[in-house]
Amino acid sequence: MRIPLNKKSREPLYRQIHQFLRDEIRCKALPADFRLPSSRTLSAGLGVSRITVMNAYAELESEGLVHIQPGSGTYVAPPAAYHSLPAEDGLDVHDWPIWQQELLSRTWLPARREMERLLASTVHPDPISFAGDLVAENLFPADEFRKTINAVLRRDGQQAFGYGNRAGFAPLRETIAHILAGQGIPTSPDHVLITSGSQQALSLVAQVLVQAGGSVLVESPTYIGAIDLFRSLNVRLMGVPVDEEGMRIEAVEEALKRNKPRLIYTIPAFHNPTGVCMAADRRRRLINLASRYNVPILEDDCFGDLRYDGRALPALKALDPNGCVIYVNTFSKMLMPGLRVGYLVASGPLYDRLLSCKYTCDLATSNLIQRALEAYISVGRYQAHLRRACGAYRKRRDAMVAALDAHMPEGVRWRVPKGGLCLWLRLPDGVSAIDLLPEASEEGVVYAPGSFYFPAERPESFMRLNFAPHTPERTEEGIRRLARALERYLSRRKAEEEPQRLHMGVTV
Amino acid sequence: MRIPLNKKSREPLYRQIHQFLRDEIRCKALPADFRLPSSRTLSAGLGVSRITVMNAYAELESEGLVHIQPGSGTYVAPPAAYHSLPAEDGLDVHDWPIWQQELLSRTWLPARREMERLLASTVHPDPISFAGDLVAENLFPADEFRKTINAVLRRDGQQAFGYGNRAGFAPLRETIAHILAGQGIPTSPDHVLITSGSQQALSLVAQVLVQAGGSVLVESPTYIGAIDLFRSLNVRLMGVPVDEEGMRIEAVEEALKRNKPRLIYTIPAFHNPTGVCMAADRRRRLINLASRYNVPILEDDCFGDLRYDGRALPALKALDPNGCVIYVNTFSKMLMPGLRVGYLVASGPLYDRLLSCKYTCDLATSNLIQRALEAYISVGRYQAHLRRACGAYRKRRDAMVAALDAHMPEGVRWRVPKGGLCLWLRLPDGVSAIDLLPEASEEGVVYAPGSFYFPAERPESFMRLNFAPHTPERTEEGIRRLARALERYLSRRKAEEEPQRLHMGVTV
Repeated sequence: MRIPLNKKSREPLYRQIHQFLRDEIRCKALPADFRLPSSRTLSAGLGVSRITVMNAYAELESEGLVHIQPGSGTYVAPPAAYHSLPAEDGLDVHDWPIWQQELLSRTWLPARREMERLLASTVHPDPISFAGDLVAENLFPADEFRKTINAVLRRDGQQAFGYGNRAGFAPLRETIAHILAGQGIPTSPDHVLITSGSQQALSLVAQVLVQAGGSVLVESPTYIGAIDLFRSLNVRLMGVPVDEEGMRIEAVEEALKRNKPRLIYTIPAFHNPTGVCMAADRRRRLINLASRYNVPILEDDCFGDLRYDGRALPALKALDPNGCVIYVNTFSKMLMPGLRVGYLVASGPLYDRLLSCKYTCDLATSNLIQRALEAYISVGRYQAHLRRACGAYRKRRDAMVAALDAHMPEGVRWRVPKGGLCLWLRLPDGVSAIDLLPEASEEGVVYAPGSFYFPAERPESFMRLNFAPHTPERTEEGIRRLARALERYLSRRKAEEEPQRLHMGVTV
Repeated sequence: MRIPLNKKSREPLYRQIHQFLRDEIRCKALPADFRLPSSRTLSAGLGVSRITVMNAYAELESEGLVHIQPGSGTYVAPPAAYHSLPAEDGLDVHDWPIWQQELLSRTWLPARREMERLLASTVHPDPISFAGDLVAENLFPADEFRKTINAVLRRDGQQAFGYGNRAGFAPLRETIAHILAGQGIPTSPDHVLITSGSQQALSLVAQVLVQAGGSVLVESPTYIGAIDLFRSLNVRLMGVPVDEEGMRIEAVEEALKRNKPRLIYTIPAFHNPTGVCMAADRRRRLINLASRYNVPILEDDCFGDLRYDGRALPALKALDPNGCVIYVNTFSKMLMPGLRVGYLVASGPLYDRLLSCKYTCDLATSNLIQRALEAYISVGRYQAHLRRACGAYRKRRDAMVAALDAHMPEGVRWRVPKGGLCLWLRLPDGVSAIDLLPEASEEGVVYAPGSFYFPAERPESFMRLNFAPHTPERTEEGIRRLARALERYLSRRKAEEEPQRLHMGVTV
């Protein structure tokens, strides 16, 4: 199948493919029950990635134009299936105002939503998901927190429902400054800004410090929400490889020499997605480089307190004599994400700008939730929960590692993370985590394909496994399913390659 | 006093004045107890606004360099008072990293923070404030809401603390769609996006639709948070005058002909700050213009349900056949702002872009609060609260109007708003609400000077009086104080003008 693609167009490739096929189906050039080429075949033929083709097919399916039958193929739907579907609002695309149509040409799909769409198309009645959010709902101290909210509302009453202090509830900022001081990060409540989760903290810093067209230095791979955030601001991402000691510092220096970024974004503790910790000497060297090249560091410490082995290293912020580090953290991972409370620590003119930016973005973070959180920490419940959670997470990590040891075929590699909530797995050479996904889904397990975590080139041989949400038993079962899928995949591939190899033997 | 000012510099004028005076004080060119010129004198001498001078003085006071003695003057502090103060972080400005120093030259103070700073410098032990947030804390149904949270947490447990649906808790979106349908706005839950208050809704729309350097058409005056938001994005504001029937439509058309804005922002119901409602025929004409000129309308309806007289007019969104209106609302005014829950209604490619933008900004709005809000509405408590609140607000409005009728001197004008939470007052010709503020503060009353609500030129003869927070008795007392201050101010001005007039008489 030949689809004319304009690779220089601002129209994403998946949308070009989708539009071409949609028109072909609507004018019946592709008849009902026609089997579209497999995503592998079409992607090879067009010279695009398989995700691109899969996204185009998912789009067609969401419009009722095709049926995707996992393990069998993608078929053009009979006309009735889509003609009966009303267009959105009862309007066709061409009835939209022109400014809406103009948006179409600038459409951009965040990597996270691209991944979620891909995962949604892998159908199984009850899959074990290692792909979801890095949280363990079944460990949330919901009832304790309910009691705390009650106590706070009995104490503060109507006050708890006003806008409150724009920088955040003052006692909560004091409590946070106190916690940070205990970790070797001296600060004052006046330098703490409460945000709606760490994502908002990253967003505020990016809005204030990075202009469109500028660049940011990030780990490669890195947190998908940071990639999407910087992309949304039209920022160029400069990826620095990560090894077992974190960001490769000589690569940082090379990048700083080549091109002056506006910001260095790093997750030094239990890096997401790889789980590694930046070594102590690299931390010092990174800070020196940042000072020398006059680039601020944005330190994302959202997994910092989830340590199961070894001793804590000082945060970058604790090593920072000149105020070049902006520190970001959240209660989403350590406690519960539905609170939507995080914070940042900054000083000088930057703090004032961030406060103004927070105000124009959403005025303030929920006063009630901030008060409840402060009370929850002050009576010591937070610390007790953290100890309990770390104990549970350690067991869940160990269960995953044991299951991997027991079941994974040769050639699969991983490193045991000393903290955090995920494990980074490398498949045998030449195996794509995207290609493996339909097979895994059929076995009843899904994971996050690693390619989405890379800022630029997207190597496909990695996957991120989230060990937080499941009991050891369920994790063991999930890994068993994953191993089965991989073995099936490998043996099928071998079978496919066999005739080819014979054939090659003949021609030599 | 001559202060060299560079009016073309990006350094704000107040900061230039502040820095000059700071250096003069530090090098003792201005000795301890030296009385600085009054803000009126200095502003006249320098050809800058009084706010600029007052901001510079407030800055000096916050550094301990001067004492402001209300009604007396501003005096240089003795050296001990400031030498003992540690600089921020123990660092001097020049120790900051260069990227921090660069931020200084791009510092921008939102109008809201500028106003808050001005109000903070007007000292009185117990002023009656008509300047604060447009909410009535003493009407918040805190205990009812506490019970609802309890019920929800007993029902949903840990689920309530996960990230939840990115577009917002689905039953809440259904409930909102249902409420809107009852107001003649047909929509579907899939077109509702839950946001952290209406401020975030405005921010998302601005981020998606308006690029830096573009322009937005707004009412003049308008909501201060919208002015600040658009300014923060380097958007040019085109102000359209408002009369007793709302935005002047012929001025809208002229503006649309002159310059194509990316957006029309309007508060058609109980406009903030003037309290007027846009007339029905103007609503239709505005929508026609928006369609004709291909410009989306952003309708901010955050006071829409707070009506005390007359009949409701259909929202712009209800009159919109082509989807050119983006509708924004919040539970901050109708219920409680500390919830931080608002929403927008949009469709087509725009909705998808806004959802992506919400995700990069802060992932999601608090799941727990959304669930509690949904339950609060579903059991009918919200509607009952709204009826009670409207009854109370009507009384408070009537009390303010009665007090104004009884006490205000001639030449002061206002219009009785049929809803909303504030009243827009025009002072006699030539009286500046900024100039009156120290006098009023001394009497024990403060208000929001109207100049801050204008997008461009800032006429000073208006003030916004917030009648929401106070009981009728306290409002009456506040207005009495305000009238006293105004009378004192007018008679002093008369006395000052008297000799001048005599003098002029002599010279003629």
